[in-house]
Amino acid sequence: MRQNLIPQLLTIALLVTIPAAAAAGPPDFPATTDEKFDPVAVGSYSGDHAAIYAHIDQNLDAHLSQLQRWLRQRSISAQNDGILEMAEMLRSDLESMGFAEAELVETSGHPGVWGYYDAGADKTLVIYLMYDVQPVDPEDWESPPFAAEVIDHPLGRVIMARAATNQKGPERAFFNALDSILAVEGTLPVNLMIAAEGEEEIGSPNYPEVIAKYEDRLRSADGVFFPFNSQDPKGDVSMFLGVKGILYFELEARGNETGGPKQAEIHGSLKAMVDAPVLRLIQAIASMTTVDGNTITIPGYYDPIRAPTHEEETLINTQLDDWAGQELLMKQAFAVDKFADDLTGRDLLMRYLYTTTLNVDGIWGGYTEEGTKTILPHMATAKMDSRLAPNQKPDEALALIRKHLEDNGFGDLEIRQLSGYPPAQTSVSAPLVQAAIRVYNKYGLTPDVTPRIGGSAPYYVFTDLGLPLIAGGIGHGSGAHAPNEYMVVEPKEGSAVAGLAEIEKFYVDLLYALAE
Amino acid sequence: MRQNLIPQLLTIALLVTIPAAAAAGPPDFPATTDEKFDPVAVGSYSGDHAAIYAHIDQNLDAHLSQLQRWLRQRSISAQNDGILEMAEMLRSDLESMGFAEAELVETSGHPGVWGYYDAGADKTLVIYLMYDVQPVDPEDWESPPFAAEVIDHPLGRVIMARAATNQKGPERAFFNALDSILAVEGTLPVNLMIAAEGEEEIGSPNYPEVIAKYEDRLRSADGVFFPFNSQDPKGDVSMFLGVKGILYFELEARGNETGGPKQAEIHGSLKAMVDAPVLRLIQAIASMTTVDGNTITIPGYYDPIRAPTHEEETLINTQLDDWAGQELLMKQAFAVDKFADDLTGRDLLMRYLYTTTLNVDGIWGGYTEEGTKTILPHMATAKMDSRLAPNQKPDEALALIRKHLEDNGFGDLEIRQLSGYPPAQTSVSAPLVQAAIRVYNKYGLTPDVTPRIGGSAPYYVFTDLGLPLIAGGIGHGSGAHAPNEYMVVEPKEGSAVAGLAEIEKFYVDLLYALAE
Repeated sequence: MRQNLIPQLLTIALLVTIPAAAAAGPPDFPATTDEKFDPVAVGSYSGDHAAIYAHIDQNLDAHLSQLQRWLRQRSISAQNDGILEMAEMLRSDLESMGFAEAELVETSGHPGVWGYYDAGADKTLVIYLMYDVQPVDPEDWESPPFAAEVIDHPLGRVIMARAATNQKGPERAFFNALDSILAVEGTLPVNLMIAAEGEEEIGSPNYPEVIAKYEDRLRSADGVFFPFNSQDPKGDVSMFLGVKGILYFELEARGNETGGPKQAEIHGSLKAMVDAPVLRLIQAIASMTTVDGNTITIPGYYDPIRAPTHEEETLINTQLDDWAGQELLMKQAFAVDKFADDLTGRDLLMRYLYTTTLNVDGIWGGYTEEGTKTILPHMATAKMDSRLAPNQKPDEALALIRKHLEDNGFGDLEIRQLSGYPPAQTSVSAPLVQAAIRVYNKYGLTPDVTPRIGGSAPYYVFTDLGLPLIAGGIGHGSGAHAPNEYMVVEPKEGSAVAGLAEIEKFYVDLLYALAE
Repeated sequence: MRQNLIPQLLTIALLVTIPAAAAAGPPDFPATTDEKFDPVAVGSYSGDHAAIYAHIDQNLDAHLSQLQRWLRQRSISAQNDGILEMAEMLRSDLESMGFAEAELVETSGHPGVWGYYDAGADKTLVIYLMYDVQPVDPEDWESPPFAAEVIDHPLGRVIMARAATNQKGPERAFFNALDSILAVEGTLPVNLMIAAEGEEEIGSPNYPEVIAKYEDRLRSADGVFFPFNSQDPKGDVSMFLGVKGILYFELEARGNETGGPKQAEIHGSLKAMVDAPVLRLIQAIASMTTVDGNTITIPGYYDPIRAPTHEEETLINTQLDDWAGQELLMKQAFAVDKFADDLTGRDLLMRYLYTTTLNVDGIWGGYTEEGTKTILPHMATAKMDSRLAPNQKPDEALALIRKHLEDNGFGDLEIRQLSGYPPAQTSVSAPLVQAAIRVYNKYGLTPDVTPRIGGSAPYYVFTDLGLPLIAGGIGHGSGAHAPNEYMVVEPKEGSAVAGLAEIEKFYVDLLYALAE
């Protein structure tokens, strides 16, 4: 999960204005219905698993220790720090719980972990897990990132650690729920396939190898679930049914046979006679957008994007009920005074959900220290990404970018693709989604359901197999990829945020609801 | 001196092709004469100061020790390392030599040094000196940068040290020449004003304060001389009569009230909704040049540039005699396969000498490490410089850039000027220049005389007072601003490069030639 701010900001409903659609470029998909999706109408899960809930309550200290055990095991994928130890910890936990299969899966990078629990049930759920974590700057933390101490926090008692919320906290809470079900019932209500990776935080480069190995068996499953703290600090729940794809590449200009210094920087005064690779990079990037940077000018780039389905439109209409409030919240959260192209209302939401982007994540070249140094750099590089909306494909997007550069005299610039995968989409009518909404409703936490977030995750590996996928669960945490990451384990009196016991009970209910 | 590669590459004579002048933009100054400047016709200095030459030869070891004494004194202006000690060393040397005035000059930065030697002579020469040096990475040096050891080198015996050639080596050699004149004759043939700075390597920000203090007295002088190793490795001498000015600034885009994140980077997927400061910087820079980066599109930017004078045209015509050879040498030196706009011949030389530039010295923003990180950066910055040809003025150039940005919707980008001064020009007919050429001719080293180099130095502080200025001297060194900087003190048998004794004799002759 690359980002989860948006789902937390996109909640409940009132369209304020509909400005004229942007002229050329991004697709304009006017509303074709005013129907709204009503999550309350989905119903409420009525199952009561009192014995399991009691087991969770009685063993809560031990369950918290299980979170600490996982969180204290380093597993920084970018630095290959503790990876094998964490993979083995996960595998051995599966084995201890009675999984018939529990094995490391060799890949070209860090290993995956596969597990299969045969409950002899009708339904089979795939659990997507990531066992790796982001790097840390320990000196920036209130409590050490791998100490996993439980400390006081304005929201209550929290466990503070790298991966507390992204993603070991909710993942191990899910395993605690399995432990309690197994302790009380002796088996699970559904069969489980565990498909874990240790490279999520570095872009999941080898996860497709894990999927490929078990593809046929995965196809037979009923859906994919990713344990996830879905509550915002106020307790509101959001649920997203899709993610955008991504194309991430480096674009680099160097001196070459067409001009510019080929070996090293030269004196800046020589610009009078010599081509400048930095300016060529700048001109190449500039050629890809309008002057405001907000519309992509690469021919055909927006063409593949499909219109929202009727079902998605009903979700969007519901989102718009409280959209004005969401705009205010987003302006605060992102520290922006106005949105691109002065968009507001449905146009803004549609731009977020149903267009692609071209973004410069970073750019560098030449002298970047203090003061003056006068050089003509021989190279310059930009990191760029494009978020892919349905039905864009990364290879096709890259081909359009390449053709555009060639057609505009920039064919000699090097494009190095670093990542690329398509978007993923799940229907709100999928039984897994309906089950989740019923369980949320049971807890009085009717979710805000959005057709997708603008962020990317490689969920296509599952949805392209025809499997519905959701990230879900109650509970709240924050600080992913940042210092002082935490997950609330014991909320403040009166808070709508769930504590660890309720988080685990939700997972219990979800498995039984899906089994129905 | 920011760069001295070019004068060494611009030597003697044959125009190959004259392609059509570039369409819009850079000024086109077609030739109006085919007259050539003939440096041989200036004549040869006939003075013979045998007693002084003998004194130099007899004291050469002591003179070499004087170079070492200066070179072993650190004086890194950027790091304020040894600056005051070096300033005092210079001041006290002046005092010891009998300068009536020898004083530190307080400025807003490192002190200047002023000296005045009253020879009771008709002519007064200003000596421009810099006593500061560039930083060093000692581990990259064959011989430690402040050891000033004399070591073997393919060109002969060299003294290796930071500032060996830029600039303490030739400067102290000039002082050695003064020592020998004074030892033999008891006085100097001309009055001398020493105007030294300790901030040349950081852009001379406070040198105008030194000049301002002595402005009235400086105006009464006959010219300004900067001791300089003018020979290339083959022994050929080049002489430049002008420098371009410079405007150096940082251009920065940040999120602000017009859009974009104002406080920190946000998630890259939000590009769908939020303006991108990096793209605004890129578009702003792109708007300033043609797509190839070689023609400035800022209205009026080229307008102030004046045509070459008749005298300058004769210098250019002489340069063109061997221009094809120079093009080849430059291609090798800069590792370029072709020049901007496919220019060759007179068009290329004129572009170098008589146009301005817009160059990106460095650019940075966002994530620039390994791998993928998906952010929308809240700011991006470029360092840019423009070399100013006669009669461009830095303030006017900056005003045109600012207006262009405002007119194109980039008025909110911040421009931070880091440096700015006008070009400087000396006439080849100035008595100081004629004297120097006569002395070069005496040594059989008839100079290649170019109207200017494309690099910048703040010589305007003198030329704007009406003073001719030249950097001159025989001798060779290299490695300025780089590791293993050296100056030849004892050339290989058969080399046309001068050794320390001849370098000093040249300075003796120059002072007497000017006095004539």
